[in-house]
This record gives sequence, structure tokens and C-alpha cells, in this order.
Amino acid sequence: MGGEAAAAAGRAPEPGRRILVAVDEGDESVHALRWCLSTFAAAARGDTVILLYVRPAPPTYSVLDASAAVGYLFSEEVTAAMDRYSREVADAVVEKAQKLCTLYSKEVGGSGHEMKVEVKVAVGDARTVICHMADKLGADLLVMGSHGYGFFKRALLGSVSDYCLRNASCPVLIVKS
Amino acid sequence: MGGEAAAAAGRAPEPGRRILVAVDEGDESVHALRWCLSTFAAAARGDTVILLYVRPAPPTYSVLDASAAVGYLFSEEVTAAMDRYSREVADAVVEKAQKLCTLYSKEVGGSGHEMKVEVKVAVGDARTVICHMADKLGADLLVMGSHGYGFFKRALLGSVSDYCLRNASCPVLIVKS
Repeated sequence: MGGEAAAAAGRAPEPGRRILVAVDEGDESVHALRWCLSTFAAAARGDTVILLYVRPAPPTYSVLDASAAVGYLFSEEVTAAMDRYSREVADAVVEKAQKLCTLYSKEVGGSGHEMKVEVKVAVGDARTVICHMADKLGADLLVMGSHGYGFFKRALLGSVSDYCLRNASCPVLIVKS
Repeated sequence: MGGEAAAAAGRAPEPGRRILVAVDEGDESVHALRWCLSTFAAAARGDTVILLYVRPAPPTYSVLDASAAVGYLFSEEVTAAMDRYSREVADAVVEKAQKLCTLYSKEVGGSGHEMKVEVKVAVGDARTVICHMADKLGADLLVMGSHGYGFFKRALLGSVSDYCLRNASCPVLIVKS
């Protein structure tokens, strides 16, 4: 156990933890973020909360792909409108999450410490992007709601969090509503 | 968001968090406990770490049950020996976990604060017992390794943590090795 003590002692002066919170448009992720801010993250300890929103990749079918496209075929206008809507949703979600961070930072953290907050918006499959970003951003912890990734994927409830539990390189904290 | 601020302010003076750590004889649970002690639990904040070991219920077949017993039939001596072994394993696991808590409390917590540690040993099906205890003990967080519950149930890897993720009334933190 001697090495253990040394390791423990060695970890004491570490800088704050990097806490990656996967946010989406669902209430579960808001609840998870709120829990994280009130119970885990500590501005005074130098923690950084990284808000990650992953928006789905826009459909890329064009008229030229028509023969290969098994699903729907969208005109450029529709594709552009969907992409615009997706960006607007991302902005709204991130803004709401940031406000929550500011609020908790002031009300809970108090005493001059303000929570460091970073915002990342990525595009792609939520499951793989979240795991990739957790690794890339050096997250010490990944926090998410149990439904994993919201509105667009209600039919696959839980699948994103299940995937991240199995594949993320850091510990994963699942917060249910 | 006014109520939010009040809620946030209201939570600030809360007493320390009650962190339930499911321990077993596997390395994963030791790793999860170590992570919890070094990264999450804070003696200075008044946190309490509750170590929970669930040992399997002893087989209860007797000669009188022979007609109903589909599985194995154990003599009383064998049953008693298995129960004794199970208790010895429980004692060893809990003792090791407690030593780890003491070590981290001294080395990391430092400055006069010592981590409050409670020990619970329960008997039954790990999945349901862990969820029940999380509720009964008022845990703010349940921490466990991804393999959930060790040695005896290697064949069901992950099933305990999966069950707890779905059924525990508090957030669940899964720490992989």
C-alpha cells in the first residue's frame, strides 16, 4: 500500500477536474447539468464544465444520389432549412445551459469564484462524437441524462448513454430525472 | 429562472453528500472506490462514503426440500462452509476498502479533516439490494465499477450496473478500469 499512499499524495495538488456534460434539448439533460452543478462541480476547486451539444449531420443526398438513396430525397432548400433549424436548436440549448452554469456559479459557488465553462458544438452521431470528445478534451468525467440524446432519437432511448458507458475512456455519471 | 436561483441558493448550505460505493472482490470496484476518493469525495465538505458489500444468499436447500430442489443439494456442513467462506470474503473486501478510505482521507484530505466512512454488509441479490440500499440510506450518488458485482457473477458481466442504472433512485457513476 506504500505506492498507493504516494499516488494519493501525488494527486492532491492536481488542477480542477474537467467535467464534460452532454446537453441536448430534453429535460433530462438539463436535470443532469443542474445536478452536476449543484452536487459535483466546484468553482472554488478550479473545475471546468464543458458543455457539449452534438447535432445530427445534415442529410447529404442530392439529385445525383437518387439512385443510391434508399430513404428520402430532399431538395436543397429543404436540406438548408433543416440545417438552419438544427443550428437554431443547438444555439438555444447551449444558451440555456450556459445560463444555468452562470446562475449556479454565482448562487452556489459564491465568494469570488466563477465556474470555468467551455462550449463545444459538434456534428455527427451523438454516441461516437461524445466518446471521441471525452477523449480529445481530456475529460475526467462524462455526465449525461439516462436518455442520452434527446428529442430526435426518442425511439432509441438510452442507447447513447449505454454506448458511452461501454466506450468512453473516462468514468460516466448517469443522472435520471 | 427566478425559482432556479432560489433553488440553487437553497442547496448551498446542504450537509455533505452521502456517496454509496458498491464494493466487491474485483479490481474494478477497488478502482471505482479509488477514483471516488481521489476525484469526488471531499472530507472537508463533510461527505460520507458508505461502503456496501452484498454477499450472495446462502443456498437454503435441505434434505426435506429434495423433491422440490431442481439444482444442487448441499449437506449442512457444505452449506455452513460456503457461508463461512462468504463471510470471510466479505470481511476481507470491506477491510481493504476501509484501509483505502483511511489512506486517501489522510493523504489527500489532509488538514484535520477525516472522511466519514460507514460500512454495510447485506445479503441477497446484488442488483436489488444495491438499489434498495441506495434508497434506504439516502444516497446522493451510487458509485460502482462497470462489472457491477464481481467474482461470482463473471458470466453476467455488467448486468448489475445495468440494472442499477435503470432502477436506482439516485444518479449512478460507473467507473471502468
